[in-house]
Amino acid sequence: MLEKIDLKKRMPKKDYANKFEELSAKVGALQRDIRDAGIPVLVVFEGFRGTLRGELINQLLSVMDPRGFRVYSTSKTTEVQRTKPFFTAFWQQLPNKGTISLYHRGWYFLKNEHDVGDPDEASSWYDISYEQINAFEKELAEENYCIIKIFAHISVKKQEKNLKKIDKLYGDSWETLAPGGVEGIDYKAYHKVYEKMLAMTDTTYAPWHVVPLEDMRIGVIAVFNIIIDSFERALRSNKHKTAGSLSIKKDSSVPDILSTFDLTKTISKSDYAEKLKEYQKKLKVLQYELYKKKISTVIGFEGWDAGGKGGVIKRFTSALDPLGYAVNPISSPNDWEASFHYLWRFWQHIPNAGEVAIFDRTWYGRVLVERVEHFANVDEWRRAYGEINDMEAQWAKQGIIVHKFWMQIDKDEQYKRFEAREKDPNKTWKITSEDWRNRDKWAAYVDAVNEMLYRTDTKVAPWTVVEANCKYYARLKVLETMISRYESVLK
Amino acid sequence: MLEKIDLKKRMPKKDYANKFEELSAKVGALQRDIRDAGIPVLVVFEGFRGTLRGELINQLLSVMDPRGFRVYSTSKTTEVQRTKPFFTAFWQQLPNKGTISLYHRGWYFLKNEHDVGDPDEASSWYDISYEQINAFEKELAEENYCIIKIFAHISVKKQEKNLKKIDKLYGDSWETLAPGGVEGIDYKAYHKVYEKMLAMTDTTYAPWHVVPLEDMRIGVIAVFNIIIDSFERALRSNKHKTAGSLSIKKDSSVPDILSTFDLTKTISKSDYAEKLKEYQKKLKVLQYELYKKKISTVIGFEGWDAGGKGGVIKRFTSALDPLGYAVNPISSPNDWEASFHYLWRFWQHIPNAGEVAIFDRTWYGRVLVERVEHFANVDEWRRAYGEINDMEAQWAKQGIIVHKFWMQIDKDEQYKRFEAREKDPNKTWKITSEDWRNRDKWAAYVDAVNEMLYRTDTKVAPWTVVEANCKYYARLKVLETMISRYESVLK
Repeated sequence: MLEKIDLKKRMPKKDYANKFEELSAKVGALQRDIRDAGIPVLVVFEGFRGTLRGELINQLLSVMDPRGFRVYSTSKTTEVQRTKPFFTAFWQQLPNKGTISLYHRGWYFLKNEHDVGDPDEASSWYDISYEQINAFEKELAEENYCIIKIFAHISVKKQEKNLKKIDKLYGDSWETLAPGGVEGIDYKAYHKVYEKMLAMTDTTYAPWHVVPLEDMRIGVIAVFNIIIDSFERALRSNKHKTAGSLSIKKDSSVPDILSTFDLTKTISKSDYAEKLKEYQKKLKVLQYELYKKKISTVIGFEGWDAGGKGGVIKRFTSALDPLGYAVNPISSPNDWEASFHYLWRFWQHIPNAGEVAIFDRTWYGRVLVERVEHFANVDEWRRAYGEINDMEAQWAKQGIIVHKFWMQIDKDEQYKRFEAREKDPNKTWKITSEDWRNRDKWAAYVDAVNEMLYRTDTKVAPWTVVEANCKYYARLKVLETMISRYESVLK
Repeated sequence: MLEKIDLKKRMPKKDYANKFEELSAKVGALQRDIRDAGIPVLVVFEGFRGTLRGELINQLLSVMDPRGFRVYSTSKTTEVQRTKPFFTAFWQQLPNKGTISLYHRGWYFLKNEHDVGDPDEASSWYDISYEQINAFEKELAEENYCIIKIFAHISVKKQEKNLKKIDKLYGDSWETLAPGGVEGIDYKAYHKVYEKMLAMTDTTYAPWHVVPLEDMRIGVIAVFNIIIDSFERALRSNKHKTAGSLSIKKDSSVPDILSTFDLTKTISKSDYAEKLKEYQKKLKVLQYELYKKKISTVIGFEGWDAGGKGGVIKRFTSALDPLGYAVNPISSPNDWEASFHYLWRFWQHIPNAGEVAIFDRTWYGRVLVERVEHFANVDEWRRAYGEINDMEAQWAKQGIIVHKFWMQIDKDEQYKRFEAREKDPNKTWKITSEDWRNRDKWAAYVDAVNEMLYRTDTKVAPWTVVEANCKYYARLKVLETMISRYESVLK
């Protein structure tokens, strides 16, 4: 792409001043429209060193309302960041509805430095694939995120000139903020890496815009035009967005997985007490081993209301050192959470190295309650299977042990437990009219659960269905499953 | 305090089982009451190593709803954490209304390790004063936070025994999670440090509860009772909380600071353009210098509506490398933010080492709009002066440059600007009916601003009142002020 860009054009000062004034008013007005329409925007700046990208970005920022954007820099990664999946920080920095995140170099920078052979970014953590980048951007675009990628291009001569100029103005100080510096920049090597990047990640949902910065004026006006076009396109497609279909046709190819489990399985109280003690002891030792090896765990619990999630989590966590785990209770998103991508809030709880993150209800809400209650349309929850598999695969790639449990009880058992809860003054709080209402949708939930188990039971993030009519049996099965998973990892 | 604790008591197994059952139901019920009453709770566990505090905490957690609490560990600090003011992480981890944060060792741990001479915590960052700790806890207690501090006490013999037991069970693995280990624990040295800590930080708003853990059963039951008592007390005082007074009596000792500024000060456009360029160039060089030296900046902007905050911020930031600054727009808190201590959201934006955090409106909202509009009662905003001075002093102590600007215009100038905004299609969005309403309360705001300037203009975090009837003059004054502040720091 790069050689097709004309670097020879220049813009007279007066032309520039006129255009700047005209376009900056437009950018300002469109930013307000974007805010009012609740469209989240990512603007990624990538490109050659020495393009004076900082100046370019400042020109853009100078015409925008600072209350609506936030600037992120990717040039330095932190120790903690590198212990987590590559995209964790980027998920956490996502803009919410109506706001803009500006990346002065983004995820591309980290990969490019790796590819060009920079020793600081040599580790495989930086070696993210183009497919993974495209998947990340696609998932955002599908959820109405507007992604604008701008590549700043200059000639090797201009690069040399600019770098000398910067060096003269600010000495070596600026290098601490924008590390890399004047020395040892191999224009050709970067050119090659950039060409490949542009070819592999120029998608319909997140296209690249190459901007010539040989003349800063040309560059600034080009960026203004790109922002204007992209905002206008986002506003148009937002306006013409049609409400997705809500009518769920049962997919007959999905097997009835739930019916294959024998819910009569049971264990005596004394056997339970004995084994529980044994398992908890084992788990504690394993927790320390895993902590020492910095292997983290993500465990998700889903299941029928009154399926015994809470009881299982208590038995599991009481085996652990509280220093090393966190329980994340998940309910329907509050307004703030709902203003982000639906997976955003789960990325906030990626465990630190060696720790255990337990989710009491999970990201599967999208394909369970949101599907059944029509909070998500068919397109949205269908898409979610792939998005979730992708997310879990990213976690697993970082070495995180991912496991999911479905607590399976039958309708009679649930009825018994609801009744018991209503009678016990210490447990009535656990039961609400919503629980009774959900019960009426049992069949719709069965379909949703079967499809979830069918589509998201992956090798790196398996589901275990727990026969939970007998609480004792269920608790032991969960502990047993995690013990053998841990032992196989440590082997 | 410690020698008064009877470590000889033991509890028979059966007694324990009965009490456990009775008290655990109570804890569960009270946790729900606390949630319903919207009381945020901090539980801090401190004490001798080898008390099996983890087991104790797990017993407590096992009877609570995991959706209502979160466990934090302080035994390891991160690199980033240590570049920020000591209490930053603790502010960020605060529970919100109705939830519980449990600290398995808290801020006390860091100070105690320092005081006992642990080389890992030798730096002065860890050397926080008891007064500072008390101030932190008091500020929380004043805002309805329930603080429960539990000290786990054992004899030196029991400590040795427990540590050997742990070591035998888990080998050296557990030490990675709970660093310190078996060797080199000087019981006497810790005893001395703990005694002092208990004496200096045992306050009415956050009292210490020493729990003997010579017998784990005694310890668990004691903790249950402490939790029950503390929850009940918090619920009682929450119920009897009276609405604070809203009637503002003008404090005649507050001088009319605003009237002393000459708003006719002005500068020509051409002089402005020339100086602006010069100042921006200087600022950029200074930014790199400060970044290199890892000196961060917090700048707060307050001022009359249409006082020109936005314009100043643009001129200031467009001088900077966007890699090194962030603008934090502050409006009235959303529901999520409002469920925390009112200062919580500002602690989220403490700049990273060497970076600049700009606040477009600030924590002074408490003593301005919240005072004038009666969102805060008299006690609350009076108290805020001290709380804010304390917060800014903590930032300054960490080496952060803190500066605050008040953009001062007169009522006529504001009227002119409102009119102009209403006529300009690109600016009408800037003006709302609320702006006109605020204008009616001009006199009340003058009182509030004068008192704010009077009480919070400190040496480490000074206010600069900016004569802003002339925008050019105002912008240059802000840039000039920051340049000379920076130069004096770097000298």
